[in-house]
Amino acid sequence: MKIVIAPDSFKGSLSAAQVAQAVAEGVSRVWPSAMVVLKPMADGGEGTLDACAVALAARRQLRTVSDAEGRTVDAPILFAPGDIAVIESAQIVGLPMISHSRVAERSTAGVGLMLRHALDAGARRIMIGLGGTATNDGGIGLLAALGVVLKDAAGRTLAADLDSLATFACVDWSLLDARLAGAELVVMSDVDNPLCGPDGATMTFGPQKGVQPDELPRLDAALAHWAQAGDTRAGAAVSAEAGSGAAGGLGYALKLLGARCEAGAAEIADLIGLDDAIYGADWVITGEGRSDAQTLRGKVPYEVSHRARAAGVPVTLLSGALDRASLAELALLFGGCFSITDGPMTLDRAIGDAHELLANQGEQLARIRSAW
Amino acid sequence: MKIVIAPDSFKGSLSAAQVAQAVAEGVSRVWPSAMVVLKPMADGGEGTLDACAVALAARRQLRTVSDAEGRTVDAPILFAPGDIAVIESAQIVGLPMISHSRVAERSTAGVGLMLRHALDAGARRIMIGLGGTATNDGGIGLLAALGVVLKDAAGRTLAADLDSLATFACVDWSLLDARLAGAELVVMSDVDNPLCGPDGATMTFGPQKGVQPDELPRLDAALAHWAQAGDTRAGAAVSAEAGSGAAGGLGYALKLLGARCEAGAAEIADLIGLDDAIYGADWVITGEGRSDAQTLRGKVPYEVSHRARAAGVPVTLLSGALDRASLAELALLFGGCFSITDGPMTLDRAIGDAHELLANQGEQLARIRSAW
Repeated sequence: MKIVIAPDSFKGSLSAAQVAQAVAEGVSRVWPSAMVVLKPMADGGEGTLDACAVALAARRQLRTVSDAEGRTVDAPILFAPGDIAVIESAQIVGLPMISHSRVAERSTAGVGLMLRHALDAGARRIMIGLGGTATNDGGIGLLAALGVVLKDAAGRTLAADLDSLATFACVDWSLLDARLAGAELVVMSDVDNPLCGPDGATMTFGPQKGVQPDELPRLDAALAHWAQAGDTRAGAAVSAEAGSGAAGGLGYALKLLGARCEAGAAEIADLIGLDDAIYGADWVITGEGRSDAQTLRGKVPYEVSHRARAAGVPVTLLSGALDRASLAELALLFGGCFSITDGPMTLDRAIGDAHELLANQGEQLARIRSAW
Repeated sequence: MKIVIAPDSFKGSLSAAQVAQAVAEGVSRVWPSAMVVLKPMADGGEGTLDACAVALAARRQLRTVSDAEGRTVDAPILFAPGDIAVIESAQIVGLPMISHSRVAERSTAGVGLMLRHALDAGARRIMIGLGGTATNDGGIGLLAALGVVLKDAAGRTLAADLDSLATFACVDWSLLDARLAGAELVVMSDVDNPLCGPDGATMTFGPQKGVQPDELPRLDAALAHWAQAGDTRAGAAVSAEAGSGAAGGLGYALKLLGARCEAGAAEIADLIGLDDAIYGADWVITGEGRSDAQTLRGKVPYEVSHRARAAGVPVTLLSGALDRASLAELALLFGGCFSITDGPMTLDRAIGDAHELLANQGEQLARIRSAW
């Protein structure tokens, strides 16, 4: 019996590795000698470094950068054999790290600084996980940290912020870090929104980052102004491409630097060798904190289901909570979707008891499987 | 594919038949052509008449009796071919029907009146479900309704109540309804407590019926005084036997009348032909509103598990809530124990949405089963 456990993290509760460990604990109560392969997953957002670290035999190092509110922080970066570096934007400008600022004041400069650290270390392939960021700056902070300068009509240098994005006359790319030309940039994201407009970064994700309703038009207009200049330089409507709206436009900025945009969960599944693990397995168990319509749009369980089904291996979903309205669609992807709750309880209780609940539910899944 | 669905009721939410129907609905989404056999169960308490009615091809009739607080009520009784009658104590002196009274004031007289109705109708085999009653009168109300009289030392007739039970000098059995001698009485109960003492009816079940802590010794002492007289007449320590403490001592009174005491769930499983249904089935699904240490002591899922496993058929438990402390023991009885909750929620929500939750969970169980 070979079982692959490949969950996402349960946000605010357990890391993907902890989730996998808990489920394995329960499964092992029923099948002590089963071969249980833990493949903690991520989708480019929170947990991406954790998922990549073991798989890539990578060294986790700290580098000094700035967070979304401009404070100096030491943030992690992975360096892996093959001149590979992995950066997780959420660890640098993540939403949980915000104290008080308005969204319009926040900057992705720290991610740009981390990119420079990667280049300093000789990285030739730099993977950047988007998702979970607090920013909506169109990636101008990142670009400025790499040498890009906004200027007004008189040729004066402007601050790399949203006010300038709305008003700048031209962009000076001449000082862009030349080492970028020799590096392959790979963006990992689960967002396929364009940069601006009704489906853009501001309108879609601004509110959950704290943009007030009356600020939305101004921020979206600033990104639209920025899109004109960026698209002109690229010679293509990059701002309209899927993924440009990821991480408040960080996706757009990285695309302007030539980054290849990949579905985060798919890229990480490749990185950690998920297909090899699934090959010859009898069962795959995946999971996430909450399953809903978003799950169907490329989240971790979707990707794991896709690969397991392609390999002809049954795959079951363990979720903190199942959105009932999406269950009929979710059900088609899995051989069973189950919540970890063992009765009526509060969300806080489910989060606090997640390890025990996951282990117990892993056990029960194994028991129903072993009944035949 | 043949599936037997044999749940208890979910108290305060759905009848056993409704639970079975909901689970069948979900299972049928996955296997539209499966043979799904509904066998709603009960254990002698609430739902016993429902479970027996279809199985026995019985007529449900109403008869005028009194409830636990002395009000005149029309309560149901089943009459089945073979001169069989089935009485459910919970429908006559049930806890949900109580308005305000103290436990010490409540009487089982209504159950005795219903027994007379059964005899009036010519019943020769009378099955009486205990469980779910509001009373703690040692069954003296029932006996009085059938002709038994408590007397004081001066030979004066006493009221058939708890005060008299504590003080009577002798019991006059001479006017006991003579037709009882020609009838077979079968008690269905899931309680194996004795009549009195630390494990007796009062100490064990009194508090949940509303006996105040300071009243417990007085009520238990009254039952102990009653036990001396009853046991003397029986010529055996019937009060110490398992089941005498059922339904506040109604079990004891019926035993004094010669009743055979059966495990309620087992008796009803026999009545409804559960073994025949399970024979040749691929899967049995059972369920109850809450699963805990009580489940292990002969509740419906325990009985269903016992029979399914004896037949070599996998059996799975669907429960409103699983007591975590009992899960390790419960798990050994079932091929999977699952709560119907699909995420954090209140008890009220789980009760209100029970049909949908049961159907959804039935579907997911079928999906995991059909994945192999």
